[in-house]
Amino acid sequence: MIIMIRSGSDPAQVCALKEWLLKGKVTLNSVNIWGTELLKLEGDLEQIDFSLVKKFDCVAMITKTGDPYKFASRHNYPEDTVINAGGVMIGGGRFTAIAGPCSVEAEDQICNIAHSVKKSGASILRGGAFKPRTSPYAFQGLKSRGIELLIEAKKETGMPIVSEIVDISALPFFDNVDIIQVGARNMQNFELLKELGQIRKPILLKRGPANTIEEFLMSAEYILSGGNRDVILCERGVRTFETMTRNTLDIAAIPLLKKLTHLPVFADPSHASGISDIVPDLALACVAAGADGIMVEVHNDPVNAFSDGAQSITPECFDELMRKVKAMCGIVGKKPE
Amino acid sequence: MIIMIRSGSDPAQVCALKEWLLKGKVTLNSVNIWGTELLKLEGDLEQIDFSLVKKFDCVAMITKTGDPYKFASRHNYPEDTVINAGGVMIGGGRFTAIAGPCSVEAEDQICNIAHSVKKSGASILRGGAFKPRTSPYAFQGLKSRGIELLIEAKKETGMPIVSEIVDISALPFFDNVDIIQVGARNMQNFELLKELGQIRKPILLKRGPANTIEEFLMSAEYILSGGNRDVILCERGVRTFETMTRNTLDIAAIPLLKKLTHLPVFADPSHASGISDIVPDLALACVAAGADGIMVEVHNDPVNAFSDGAQSITPECFDELMRKVKAMCGIVGKKPE
Amino acid sequence: MIIMIRSGSDPAQVCALKEWLLKGKVTLNSVNIWGTELLKLEGDLEQIDFSLVKKFDCVAMITKTGDPYKFASRHNYPEDTVINAGGVMIGGGRFTAIAGPCSVEAEDQICNIAHSVKKSGASILRGGAFKPRTSPYAFQGLKSRGIELLIEAKKETGMPIVSEIVDISALPFFDNVDIIQVGARNMQNFELLKELGQIRKPILLKRGPANTIEEFLMSAEYILSGGNRDVILCERGVRTFETMTRNTLDIAAIPLLKKLTHLPVFADPSHASGISDIVPDLALACVAAGADGIMVEVHNDPVNAFSDGAQSITPECFDELMRKVKAMCGIVGKKPE
Amino acid sequence: MIIMIRSGSDPAQVCALKEWLLKGKVTLNSVNIWGTELLKLEGDLEQIDFSLVKKFDCVAMITKTGDPYKFASRHNYPEDTVINAGGVMIGGGRFTAIAGPCSVEAEDQICNIAHSVKKSGASILRGGAFKPRTSPYAFQGLKSRGIELLIEAKKETGMPIVSEIVDISALPFFDNVDIIQVGARNMQNFELLKELGQIRKPILLKRGPANTIEEFLMSAEYILSGGNRDVILCERGVRTFETMTRNTLDIAAIPLLKKLTHLPVFADPSHASGISDIVPDLALACVAAGADGIMVEVHNDPVNAFSDGAQSITPECFDELMRKVKAMCGIVGKKPE
Repeated sequence: MIIMIRSGSDPAQVCALKEWLLKGKVTLNSVNIWGTELLKLEGDLEQIDFSLVKKFDCVAMITKTGDPYKFASRHNYPEDTVINAGGVMIGGGRFTAIAGPCSVEAEDQICNIAHSVKKSGASILRGGAFKPRTSPYAFQGLKSRGIELLIEAKKETGMPIVSEIVDISALPFFDNVDIIQVGARNMQNFELLKELGQIRKPILLKRGPANTIEEFLMSAEYILSGGNRDVILCERGVRTFETMTRNTLDIAAIPLLKKLTHLPVFADPSHASGISDIVPDLALACVAAGADGIMVEVHNDPVNAFSDGAQSITPECFDELMRKVKAMCGIVGKKPE
Repeated sequence: MIIMIRSGSDPAQVCALKEWLLKGKVTLNSVNIWGTELLKLEGDLEQIDFSLVKKFDCVAMITKTGDPYKFASRHNYPEDTVINAGGVMIGGGRFTAIAGPCSVEAEDQICNIAHSVKKSGASILRGGAFKPRTSPYAFQGLKSRGIELLIEAKKETGMPIVSEIVDISALPFFDNVDIIQVGARNMQNFELLKELGQIRKPILLKRGPANTIEEFLMSAEYILSGGNRDVILCERGVRTFETMTRNTLDIAAIPLLKKLTHLPVFADPSHASGISDIVPDLALACVAAGADGIMVEVHNDPVNAFSDGAQSITPECFDELMRKVKAMCGIVGKKPE
Repeated sequence: MIIMIRSGSDPAQVCALKEWLLKGKVTLNSVNIWGTELLKLEGDLEQIDFSLVKKFDCVAMITKTGDPYKFASRHNYPEDTVINAGGVMIGGGRFTAIAGPCSVEAEDQICNIAHSVKKSGASILRGGAFKPRTSPYAFQGLKSRGIELLIEAKKETGMPIVSEIVDISALPFFDNVDIIQVGARNMQNFELLKELGQIRKPILLKRGPANTIEEFLMSAEYILSGGNRDVILCERGVRTFETMTRNTLDIAAIPLLKKLTHLPVFADPSHASGISDIVPDLALACVAAGADGIMVEVHNDPVNAFSDGAQSITPECFDELMRKVKAMCGIVGKKPE
Repeated sequence: MIIMIRSGSDPAQVCALKEWLLKGKVTLNSVNIWGTELLKLEGDLEQIDFSLVKKFDCVAMITKTGDPYKFASRHNYPEDTVINAGGVMIGGGRFTAIAGPCSVEAEDQICNIAHSVKKSGASILRGGAFKPRTSPYAFQGLKSRGIELLIEAKKETGMPIVSEIVDISALPFFDNVDIIQVGARNMQNFELLKELGQIRKPILLKRGPANTIEEFLMSAEYILSGGNRDVILCERGVRTFETMTRNTLDIAAIPLLKKLTHLPVFADPSHASGISDIVPDLALACVAAGADGIMVEVHNDPVNAFSDGAQSITPECFDELMRKVKAMCGIVGKKPE
């Protein structure tokens, strides 16, 4: 890291800055050039709060080298991460479709949908059991019973399953779940992330609706730096002023993330839009933009869904979508899993 | 329009509301039901300011029927608008690629790029002559000379041309321009829109970075209601908290607009992202999402471009993109023009 | 709730709608009027997913009556909630200043700052012990040791204390903390909110950076509906495209919340801006806008603060601020506590 | 400007970068240090597109010195600009209230409101004649007739007047208008700004709803660099995801702008909120935050206002507000004009 001192600065302040920097485990070199001073800092730079460096009036500019996310950085780890999720391989040029209902409602429901989406080409089954809801009066999910039903569907169809965790205390229920999902609202629930860094199971991490791409990667870093290297990133829309859609799908995040990180990048067109009519168009757009997978809400009877029916597509609609997805994979060089 | 009165309202206020409503050219019917009162309003409802109706405490709810945009509404005009732009047909199942440099810089430059993008499959040439720039100290375009050079390129290649207008007074320079572009910053320059409603030439209207889809359609309505029915809508990204990209491409706007309006819907992945590396991925996503066309900045020497070089792709890159675009058109049922 | 059927709708669909509605614990009345049909629904309406009602094409409009937040609604509970936080009364025309460092760092530090801010007029001491940080590599707080130091400062100064909880499992450490803070990132950590609804201790709930005012009240509702009626709302800025400030303080949320709810409304100008130079101006603006209190980060040595030094003001600056705050309270009719 | 070369860069690319930089009117110095190379660039740096410099892979970082806005910068011009608007002095520690209806509707209306707000303490009268409206079907203002009526009110009351211009062609109508307002939607109508830089009359420039503070200052720079140094900046809310208010008043922009520029900084709480009930609270917040003035919509009969009635306060409400404003000016060290 290089710090440039503003020419004409108060020497006492420059001195104070140097003292302050040296409180960390760093070494500092200085050189005078072009009427100003340059400082070179080496060592444990992570501990320095750079917003504070800027508080020193004498600082003209700072340059940091390297990504703040070490383990998530493609610069540091150029090879695509490939994740084994209950036998289904994710990333590394494969394209994976996750599908299923927003909420697990009953054994019949989840099994029927599972069979149906599997036939259409989905390789992983989704289903919510613990549901985070804006209103305390809305349906909160079948909880552990929902996980049991999901496991039934897994037994029946052989599909690996993914479900959302909303609190650390529920972790024991996820023993037979193949991928643990962290929802958008928990993207910065750092205690949860730390805990998930301690286990050895793939995590599907959704981007928070008000979080930048860098913050998204920093949250992945919480899990990765804990030792769990199997993180799938999932773009699901950010919050903007537009009210016609539930969120605004940040489609550019897909190719950007593919450049910044080696982790698989998925997208969820269902939550991103909240409108079933446009979910297939958005799903195709995600494939075209280079996503390694999509996560789509499918319900046999959307109007009677316990939650998020407005954004669920029918199995028929999903089947038609998957035919186009497979064709599109050919164009963008992905291998449908 | 139906207005429901809150039960238990002050009769004097209900009376005041009715009087106020009747000042417009409307007829009012009333019925008492379920302990409350319903008002039915018919006539020239456009003149009523609905934000004011809500100021009456006695109003429980209002329902409006129909879209606020009459001519732009697909409900009112179900058939796709097909536009003839200098011989190139736009809309109605066709897919059209517009390409060219951000700024027209010199005759050689524009002609070479024109030949090149035409060969790759672009059917319309873009080039900025009047440039709106954030800084008064930045390059402001070649102005009328830029239009002349663009017309030269049109003569040489036979491609119709599109260029941006930044003020009504420049209209005479656009006589031989096939499509007049209204830039994002002028989407609500209503005086300009009114003027463009009076002419008979296709208008490519870009969405403002802070404007909703409904406002976008209302701006189209300014042109359409003036009598000019040839408006092409162009999504080019909205402003969000994400700073890695110049804007956030609202990919969902494409399929939504296709449902709400009969006008052709284009997208501009160059301005939406500001990053040439991801422009092709976004361009493909736009095709997949159902766009009727794309507008892409192509420059033979991006680093030396007079403006927006950071988001321009090379002719080679555009050529590769177009090969994928054509393949993708087959999947989504579009005919490349 | 009233639903209006679109005239000319398919009778079979209207029938399906009615059947669907009647699956809940509701009674339904219908009347034909002006060529259309109105449905009146009574009973347990909370269970109905209104986004689904809109999926029925035959629905022209729906009106809901009442706020979705029952206990938080001023309409339902007109009187200001007054909260006793360790002997300090909050709300009901009082103005309360909470001050202290972002992080508790050492006994000396927290006690000195406590004495200082108390002298200036703060009545409650803040200090972070469990710190949610974007980077896993940044200082994560002194944790339970920080709480102990905070309790030391409470003993020394007699000031009630407030500190942030980041996970349910840490609840036992907060026995002697007077107000438990839920940070912005946890505003929709519903499991945490439910747990806090079960205890009897004031909760200071911060607004999430991407959450609407209605969602903010729904999160308060999670706590209130659990039985804990002592919730203090705290506006702390929302996320926008502006990058000069850390967040954008939604100053209008203060007077709006005062109208919508009976709960005390605070504001945090430190996190809202992230810039110590403008914190006093914003703090005064919050008082002027009608806040019941402010929460300000004060540090004796901002440059050496373990976290958020860039937004911390010095005790001297806080002292000067409080003199103005007290004068301003007189103008807006608040009694400084 | 200093550019740091990434260590280990391709010498050919570094060479290309230097050549490219030297195409402008600049001189370049180079030094090798710490295993890397530093370039110092002097001369006409405004012409260099910095987003392009970043395209060179060999560039590790760039530092620019100085604000991009030369004439607007307080660093360059430390003294407060004081503006004479028809005899009323603005800025330099004074506080100025501008009040009046959204639209000029009739002679009686504008004169009565003028007398009333003058008595309460407003020193400048506002009134819209040319109205930019989202819908082509909404009231578009009395146009030149509105300006005439405003001039009548000026004659009657002696108050200077301010009104919005929406197109260059209307400039002749503003000869007797004391301050020309540029509305939020025209903040980046650069052709209009350039024209207003050529006249000698104060300009009140409103911030665009999607524009950053820096862009706001760059738009002021268009006027200032043209030779017109009398620019008043007016914050009026930015667009966010919150839907309860029309916009989100960026209150922090007020103290920030006061630091960045010497120009007077006003705020418009009426457009910022769109809700008359909270306009007084917001107006007071603006005073507390350090604004040099406020602009408030006042209408004798808001419900019957031709436009923006929902955000207009009554003369009685304005009178009460002004009593508090004057008291508050004492606390923040402003002299009410």
